Amino acid sequence: MTQPDAAEGARAYSLDRGSVFHSWSAQRSLSPLVIAGGEGSTVWDYDGNRYLDMSSQLVYTNLGHQHPAVIEAIKRQADRLVTVAPAHANLARGEAAERILARAGSIFSKVFFTNGGADANENAIRLARLSTGRDKVLSTYRSYHGNTGSAIAATGDWRRVPNEYARSHVHFFGPFLYRSEFWSDSVEQECERALHHLERVIQAEGPASIAAILLETVPGTAGVIVPPPGYLPGVRALADKYGIVLILDEVMAGFGRTGECFAFQGFDVVPDLITFAKGVNSGYVPAGGVVLSEAIASAFDDRVFPGGLTYSGHPLAMAAIVATIDAMEHEGVVEHARMLGDEFIGPGLAALQEQHRLIGEVRGLGVFWALDLVVDRETREPVSPTIVGRLKDELMQRGVLPFTADNRIHVVPPCTMSPADVARCLAMLDEAFTAVEAE
Amino acid sequence: MTQPDAAEGARAYSLDRGSVFHSWSAQRSLSPLVIAGGEGSTVWDYDGNRYLDMSSQLVYTNLGHQHPAVIEAIKRQADRLVTVAPAHANLARGEAAERILARAGSIFSKVFFTNGGADANENAIRLARLSTGRDKVLSTYRSYHGNTGSAIAATGDWRRVPNEYARSHVHFFGPFLYRSEFWSDSVEQECERALHHLERVIQAEGPASIAAILLETVPGTAGVIVPPPGYLPGVRALADKYGIVLILDEVMAGFGRTGECFAFQGFDVVPDLITFAKGVNSGYVPAGGVVLSEAIASAFDDRVFPGGLTYSGHPLAMAAIVATIDAMEHEGVVEHARMLGDEFIGPGLAALQEQHRLIGEVRGLGVFWALDLVVDRETREPVSPTIVGRLKDELMQRGVLPFTADNRIHVVPPCTMSPADVARCLAMLDEAFTAVEAE
Ligand SMILES: Cc1ncc(COP(=O)(O)O)c(C=O)c1O
Ligand SMILES: Cc1ncc(COP(=O)(O)O)c(C=O)c1O
Repeated sequence: MTQPDAAEGARAYSLDRGSVFHSWSAQRSLSPLVIAGGEGSTVWDYDGNRYLDMSSQLVYTNLGHQHPAVIEAIKRQADRLVTVAPAHANLARGEAAERILARAGSIFSKVFFTNGGADANENAIRLARLSTGRDKVLSTYRSYHGNTGSAIAATGDWRRVPNEYARSHVHFFGPFLYRSEFWSDSVEQECERALHHLERVIQAEGPASIAAILLETVPGTAGVIVPPPGYLPGVRALADKYGIVLILDEVMAGFGRTGECFAFQGFDVVPDLITFAKGVNSGYVPAGGVVLSEAIASAFDDRVFPGGLTYSGHPLAMAAIVATIDAMEHEGVVEHARMLGDEFIGPGLAALQEQHRLIGEVRGLGVFWALDLVVDRETREPVSPTIVGRLKDELMQRGVLPFTADNRIHVVPPCTMSPADVARCLAMLDEAFTAVEAE
Repeated sequence: MTQPDAAEGARAYSLDRGSVFHSWSAQRSLSPLVIAGGEGSTVWDYDGNRYLDMSSQLVYTNLGHQHPAVIEAIKRQADRLVTVAPAHANLARGEAAERILARAGSIFSKVFFTNGGADANENAIRLARLSTGRDKVLSTYRSYHGNTGSAIAATGDWRRVPNEYARSHVHFFGPFLYRSEFWSDSVEQECERALHHLERVIQAEGPASIAAILLETVPGTAGVIVPPPGYLPGVRALADKYGIVLILDEVMAGFGRTGECFAFQGFDVVPDLITFAKGVNSGYVPAGGVVLSEAIASAFDDRVFPGGLTYSGHPLAMAAIVATIDAMEHEGVVEHARMLGDEFIGPGLAALQEQHRLIGEVRGLGVFWALDLVVDRETREPVSPTIVGRLKDELMQRGVLPFTADNRIHVVPPCTMSPADVARCLAMLDEAFTAVEAE
């Protein structure tokens, strides 16, 4: 465990403010928390403050911080063979691919590795376009797929708008009963209308021009929007009907987050391509990738795949994947995440909602939850950023690190959090809401 | 040192062939070398074969394999704090940024970290577009900038063509006397005409629409095309004249490869944005980034920068950067690379050219060289892929791992290779050419 040292903390802060350019921000007003160390569900700063990590950082440390078996595997691989070019084979890469395929299901036959989620989606889109000979990609407005050329153009949220330089991206609305775009008043109706809407978009765009439908299995940053039971099977049927590749983006939803190894396994659907990153190795070493169905992989048996990257299948990242998947299996991490959702987080958040008028809706499963905060439960008008900021401050003061987005707090701890720590998070949420609602 | 184990090697090979999808290839015909371990300038397989790494893998292990200080730093950081989200500060990230800035020069004030070279270029292009309010990006036909949306559309080589989904990319020709696009017969004329051509493209595209000129300082995969002395200063003058951001892509050329810390430092030019990856940490942990001039960085003091990624400034990658830059400094690695080029590789390759008619031109500097192979020295007609394949086989049989591209062999060893190992590479090249020319 790192010993906090205030002088080192001050140095880290001033180096950061002086030299580091930050993602998705205006730079002047930032005052980042300096993290000195972490263990399990806890991180700490240099001033002796400890925080329960209810964010899993950016929803990726699914195994928690500093999992000893994964740290050990990284160190062992570093000693053995830290890096090798993608054209050469290495054992860690093959073992990582084999483990991922064993969990994905029998229609999948190959894994293409990338550095993160954005380039996973880039390459999935490339595979879909080249294997269909079509070019349009359909994705939802409530989505995030990464910051590079095609991934950001596929993204639906505000981050797309200043970055729209890739062609052939079309957006549609997914099902979201709480803020329905389809004037629905039941989950069945929302599902049916969302599928109708998607089919109309496909027809109006021209099915023969559409390479892929790209969906987050459970849209994450957009608000943990759990799809109604029939939706994804319905999308699969539309994809089949029109010869479209179905890409499920499991960058955030995959590897335990929803209480399944792959989130789609809980929704009665099998995609053609799966994109992953984050949870695959808890982000201990940058990695992502695409799992390819045999049908798509074999289209490139004799035809050059025109995509690639220097660190595809980087041994250090691969060793972390192998150790993460093994730890998940040995420690029953996926089952634990499901149990936390069913027995603690779900019921706990439902109880909070009864106490606190700001909580308009509680959504989620596993360790993947959002509180949709509203000014008024009738109108469902979102709360202002000020309210979310106040709640964040109250939580931080109480030693809880939250993930916030728009008018929401996401409850997205590591899959490995203990029920006692979940209870502490819930208690601190209760106090924070009480404090802010009193104002 | 790893003990080779033939059974493990067979397993690694079969896992790779069964489960791993490879970059830039048709998948069926691959038979990758399985690398078991490496040290310094050498790698070995599971059958007891050792190879001098004349490729630096994909031209990135600038410090060689398994540099002990970098391995140690990675292991130390893994024990301390393996990962943290980009929004939080951490010491390793600040130290990495500070070290990079100290070497880049005084006009630079911030570093934005990415996972590799492609996303570095994506974000540099984004910065140029947003800070100028313009959208076109000019880059050369002889270039490679990465495999994601905008990076691949900026790329000039064949890999762009099936991937052209991003708008507002325009290509032009850079100076390349040996295969001039400008009917030049002296280096001065080539330089002058290339600048004239670029200015005509700028004028014809409309200067007010052009956000950036994106150039590899020394185009690498395209053939180690060292720019004539006045070219880059001339491009800088055109960029200034028309208010265009100059981005120099130093992903391959940076961090010692040319015998300078940044390659541009040898060419009397300072860009507005530098992109880097590979050599910055010898690829030991995936990392890349953009170095921003103060003028561009400050445009985002009060305005949100709409770009970002989960692993921006990943601590493990940052620790490897810090240790790599320190090792380069302590061990005089950059100076060693320059000396190798001046005293051994340059003269050695020139001598080979005298012996072997297949070698049409030798180009390069530092540890960054290409042999441009021709059927006929008069017509300069490139040799066929078969000849390059034969040379590659002859080199591999002699224990040398080459980097080949099109009709070329690139001589791109680690910056740290010993003169004796350089001499061995040269001797094996001599033998390989002799064998193939005899056929
Ligand atoms: C669903 C989803 N896809 C893709 C990405 C992009 O991943 P990365 O930031 O590693 O590029 C993210 C990141 O949050 C994500 O949540
Ligand atoms: C000059 C240049 N830019 C960008 C890249 C792309 O880097 P990466 O493969 O890390 O995305 C490369 C890779 O070879 C390169 O040589």
